[in-house]
Amino acid sequence: MAQQTNEALARLRSLVEQDLQRTNEVILEQLNSPVELITQVGDHLLNSGGKRLRPILTLVTAKLFGYQKADVHALLAAVVEFIHTATLLHDDVVDKSNTRRGQATANSVWGNKAPILVGDFLFSRSFQIMVEHGDLRVLRIVSDCCAIISEGEVMQLVASNDLATDEERYLDVIRHKTASLFASASQLGAVVADQSDEIAQRMYDYGMMLGTAYQVVDDLLDYSAETEKLGKNVGDDFQEGKITLPVIHAFRSGDAEEQAFWRRCLEDEEQDESSFDHARALIAKHGSLDYTMSQARALIVKAKAALAPLPESAERQALMDLADLSVDREY
Amino acid sequence: MAQQTNEALARLRSLVEQDLQRTNEVILEQLNSPVELITQVGDHLLNSGGKRLRPILTLVTAKLFGYQKADVHALLAAVVEFIHTATLLHDDVVDKSNTRRGQATANSVWGNKAPILVGDFLFSRSFQIMVEHGDLRVLRIVSDCCAIISEGEVMQLVASNDLATDEERYLDVIRHKTASLFASASQLGAVVADQSDEIAQRMYDYGMMLGTAYQVVDDLLDYSAETEKLGKNVGDDFQEGKITLPVIHAFRSGDAEEQAFWRRCLEDEEQDESSFDHARALIAKHGSLDYTMSQARALIVKAKAALAPLPESAERQALMDLADLSVDREY
Repeated sequence: MAQQTNEALARLRSLVEQDLQRTNEVILEQLNSPVELITQVGDHLLNSGGKRLRPILTLVTAKLFGYQKADVHALLAAVVEFIHTATLLHDDVVDKSNTRRGQATANSVWGNKAPILVGDFLFSRSFQIMVEHGDLRVLRIVSDCCAIISEGEVMQLVASNDLATDEERYLDVIRHKTASLFASASQLGAVVADQSDEIAQRMYDYGMMLGTAYQVVDDLLDYSAETEKLGKNVGDDFQEGKITLPVIHAFRSGDAEEQAFWRRCLEDEEQDESSFDHARALIAKHGSLDYTMSQARALIVKAKAALAPLPESAERQALMDLADLSVDREY
Repeated sequence: MAQQTNEALARLRSLVEQDLQRTNEVILEQLNSPVELITQVGDHLLNSGGKRLRPILTLVTAKLFGYQKADVHALLAAVVEFIHTATLLHDDVVDKSNTRRGQATANSVWGNKAPILVGDFLFSRSFQIMVEHGDLRVLRIVSDCCAIISEGEVMQLVASNDLATDEERYLDVIRHKTASLFASASQLGAVVADQSDEIAQRMYDYGMMLGTAYQVVDDLLDYSAETEKLGKNVGDDFQEGKITLPVIHAFRSGDAEEQAFWRRCLEDEEQDESSFDHARALIAKHGSLDYTMSQARALIVKAKAALAPLPESAERQALMDLADLSVDREY
């Protein structure tokens, strides 16, 4: 990520530093299992330098609304990170990914079996934590969110290798698979702070727009970043035939010959050494990265609009800044 | 399964026929998703002629304690079957199984991706159903059970290909991965019928013993049944290096040469065409199937003992019979 985003994140983090520390303690405690391999596999990903973006959203939102009981929102923030980690473990098996956050994925270290099962454990442990907390509103938000995420993952599976996937369908997939957890994470902060349904919905909307923009930019980076900075291989999405916004734009802007190229590469997965470079050239020719960024920026305008009616505070400002800067990651 | 078990199951089923029908309706309703592939993959396994043994335990137990609200226990029975189905979807990916219940597994039809993600969906949907129901006791039982199951699955993964796995460790694995759902399914029936903790625990114990015996016999069948009757390939466990009770007994009863054979086949997975037949011969030589059956029968004595103090009723009798006959499956 760009310097600026790191600064915005650092500012967010400093607002909830103690809560985040408590969250990390909860994560460690709750990851503990008599079955050592569970702790190992979970720890491998949970302590691999993830940004804790989603739990931070919960913590900052709770603080924004004056919530004080650090232990409770740390619990929920840990739940959010567990759910996120479970989906990553399963995602990396599904995508056969070798690298994440610049290190080997769990499936490349332990094979597919352990990450599938440890993902299941993290889901289950999340629900155990929430049951212990005992708030049915929280359980409803998270169980709904988990169902939406898995629907999104299957939607993505169906859409992959299919260039009939248009922008609306693409956005629907990423709202489900990525943005819904940003949305729920933000909403949870408002809910534990006993805010009205309207306020909780506002935070949900903020998270939804932010998360969608975040994924749009993430998908863009697969065509623009340098592998080193990305923490995974540039071109992975292309190789797997994922239909993301830069591709959708370049495909619909292209002539018959170009469309045939995209079909061959992404639908039939017939690629050679030069394919990815040619794909990047077509994306550049049609300004597809600029288009993609403009769509992400439009989402961020909406994210900030959701926060606009809230009273000014350091937390609100930090969430605004995060929205701005989440689209200014390096590409 | 043997004729007798089918009769016991038919008797159980007839006691809760309407409730079971309602459960099947709930399963159909709740499997519904705008994402067609989810419904397809879920339906493939949920309507593949499974015995609905676990949901029947919930329904019969609820009826045993005079519970009347058919819709509620049908919901919980559906949850139990969803959780079971989710674990089977993930299991079959983990074990690379091709056949279950005499038909192709979801992973052999759709590949690994969809079954992993649809399993996640079924877990999530189960929690959505329970949240809608709104009983935290139920949520606690099921979330604890799911964590225990996934711990058991990982324990099994660690124990596989490792002949240091002794009988106690083997039993611990199957209590976690299989019997805990039998236990929770039975317990749920008592809990929705507002029975005391002591009674609920009694039903939990019954389910735990029954489920453990059930898995012991299941593992035995892999060395004794005919493929056609088993609905999956005989010898699969052997091929995968799973350490089950017949093996543990034959291994500990064997001389150095025999132990070397077991190590070669199960730890190093060096097997040829004659290996499985030789394994069966060693198992026969040491009476390991008889030993395994005697252990299963001892568990069934305990299962029945848990029910003994309950007042006599058709339901109690049917649960007693089920226990007896679940060890008399064909082998």
